[in-house]
Amino acid sequence: MHRVPICLILLCGFCWAQAASDSQPASSNVRGAEYPRVSSDLRVTFRLKAPDAKKVQLQPGGDGLGKGPIDMTRGADGTWTATTPPAVPGFHYYWYLVDGLIVNDTASETYFGWGRESSGVEVPEKGADFYAVKDVPHGEVRVRWYYAKTTAAWRRAMVYTPAEYDRNALARYPVLYLQHGSGEDERGWTNQGRANFILDNLIAEGKAKPMIVVMEQGYATAAGAAQGRGAGQSSAFEQVVLNDLIPMIDATYRTLADRDHRGMAGLSMGGGQALQITLAHLDSFSWIGSFSSPLRAGLDLKTAYGGVFADAAAFTKKVHLLWFGAGTAEENMLKPAMAMSETLKQAGIQNVFYQSPGTAHEWQTWRRDLREFAPLLFR
Amino acid sequence: MHRVPICLILLCGFCWAQAASDSQPASSNVRGAEYPRVSSDLRVTFRLKAPDAKKVQLQPGGDGLGKGPIDMTRGADGTWTATTPPAVPGFHYYWYLVDGLIVNDTASETYFGWGRESSGVEVPEKGADFYAVKDVPHGEVRVRWYYAKTTAAWRRAMVYTPAEYDRNALARYPVLYLQHGSGEDERGWTNQGRANFILDNLIAEGKAKPMIVVMEQGYATAAGAAQGRGAGQSSAFEQVVLNDLIPMIDATYRTLADRDHRGMAGLSMGGGQALQITLAHLDSFSWIGSFSSPLRAGLDLKTAYGGVFADAAAFTKKVHLLWFGAGTAEENMLKPAMAMSETLKQAGIQNVFYQSPGTAHEWQTWRRDLREFAPLLFR
Repeated sequence: MHRVPICLILLCGFCWAQAASDSQPASSNVRGAEYPRVSSDLRVTFRLKAPDAKKVQLQPGGDGLGKGPIDMTRGADGTWTATTPPAVPGFHYYWYLVDGLIVNDTASETYFGWGRESSGVEVPEKGADFYAVKDVPHGEVRVRWYYAKTTAAWRRAMVYTPAEYDRNALARYPVLYLQHGSGEDERGWTNQGRANFILDNLIAEGKAKPMIVVMEQGYATAAGAAQGRGAGQSSAFEQVVLNDLIPMIDATYRTLADRDHRGMAGLSMGGGQALQITLAHLDSFSWIGSFSSPLRAGLDLKTAYGGVFADAAAFTKKVHLLWFGAGTAEENMLKPAMAMSETLKQAGIQNVFYQSPGTAHEWQTWRRDLREFAPLLFR
Repeated sequence: MHRVPICLILLCGFCWAQAASDSQPASSNVRGAEYPRVSSDLRVTFRLKAPDAKKVQLQPGGDGLGKGPIDMTRGADGTWTATTPPAVPGFHYYWYLVDGLIVNDTASETYFGWGRESSGVEVPEKGADFYAVKDVPHGEVRVRWYYAKTTAAWRRAMVYTPAEYDRNALARYPVLYLQHGSGEDERGWTNQGRANFILDNLIAEGKAKPMIVVMEQGYATAAGAAQGRGAGQSSAFEQVVLNDLIPMIDATYRTLADRDHRGMAGLSMGGGQALQITLAHLDSFSWIGSFSSPLRAGLDLKTAYGGVFADAAAFTKKVHLLWFGAGTAEENMLKPAMAMSETLKQAGIQNVFYQSPGTAHEWQTWRRDLREFAPLLFR
């Protein structure tokens, strides 16, 4: 009569012991934090002590942890836990909903996304080390403050300089301007995207040319204009890039300061900005990347982007690279981008289209985009 | 009969309007967040929408916002508010306690302190602009990854290079190693302390010599040792500094790589580390700063710090600057430091003691420490 319950207890104990020995604290945790933990099958276990809460949920800020909110289970001591299904590899925002209130995990580092500092969990991808910190020469990410006349305010740019930059005192370098997505900021590409390690690794392997990468925040309000997301915002950012940021970068760093050595790319909102700004200013840019950007369906080649695609021969002569990427798990971004790429190809405008297998509107897609895009630049 | 309530309503309306028109969103908020707000008399108003909470408190992570936890008041729509008494100027950590749970403010940037990412509020100091971003040449804060053999792990250092560094390709610079306090990390001195702006301003005014400032995390576990705060930790950090960090910095940057051009300082735990490491290695350091460090009372000159103070003449010959600082509102740090400073002076060992008026164990003390300490360096 007692056999069944004892077996169940043993089984439970065994399961728990397995999960514990097999799982590792996420690399995105703060020093010493044991949870969240990722097991070898990529299930992620979250844990929050909230004895007085009536309901605690895990809210993923993206698609890779599964559909949220995920109800957490209360233990006897008031610790709530949840384990996700096997997660998509990569970086995922998350937060807790404690009786409906957004609560960050004190065990996680914070990452600026969703318009606020957010928790995040790194799920490793088996065999993928292109964004790992490796024993190769490392570039620097330099925090550069500068005054923008457009906004009459100080702004912060993050500037990646390749490992050789300070050793080759006479060399000059091409520049990629690389933009984050909506709700993120100039820290996203290094903190979440690990862009510096991706470039360090590509450059060390000889796969990408040494380049400077400039990461700025894609928000701007023109001096004197009202704050907010008005129509003037995107044009103010364009003015910042052209009239403040590029002149400052070219005056401060040893750049190759011409259109043949200047590119711009971005993810999501930032990809839209990259297309808008570069295609309107081909005198300044010749390398263009759009990662998971929200593109309109039904591209009119004659009128879209100021009619820049109307003359395919002229466009091809000017633009060295037009590159699109999207994840196969983000159909709403993938399909219009694929359609645009096809329409352009049919019109004789060469471009590259990359599909990131199995990833959605999240950073693993954009890390891979950068890995694929950067080697093609400045050739 | 109706006069009194009407008057009260008008009065209330007037008070509220005054507070609203007079107050400003804290500069430490995320873009566009209206709360926390600081009024001209330095009262700080906090606001959190948590309709389902039974009790919400504001918990200051320091002394400058008043004694906590401070009970917040629930409004009809479930928004809880609290206004502090006039705050001490400077940066203050804070978080909410929502039914006892630690909850960061999604309206605030986060700052690594208390062993986790924490909310923080910046309260301006009237007339003090020594840590403001001003129209002067700006140095860079460079994120530098390096491999430490001591810990067999990659570490991140923040390296401030003065504005002229890239323009003076042949110049070499002295180096200050500058450590954070317990629960903080290598980001503290720039994010919370604004050390880069303090140095930019001092250097631009000719008050401090251009220097490199290296900010590292004061934690280390020797390769193969168990994680944690064991006895080996502080010695592992000492080994990192001497055997990994300094050699890497001297190999990577144009430093003046000798003891006459190398200093170390730190705040709280970091000040203790600075004293411990420098006084045991006067062959490597000659400029020493201790900001609000927990010092033992009753210094035995013959035995303390390996007996380095026993021969005053020899010490004075070697050490160019020994500097102590503390806030007048942190008696437990001020008194032992003052006593140590006095004991040393009486023994013929020159040193500087600085008291930060009205500030406690918080960043405004340490910003002022750096403002007073840096101008004396490398003369």
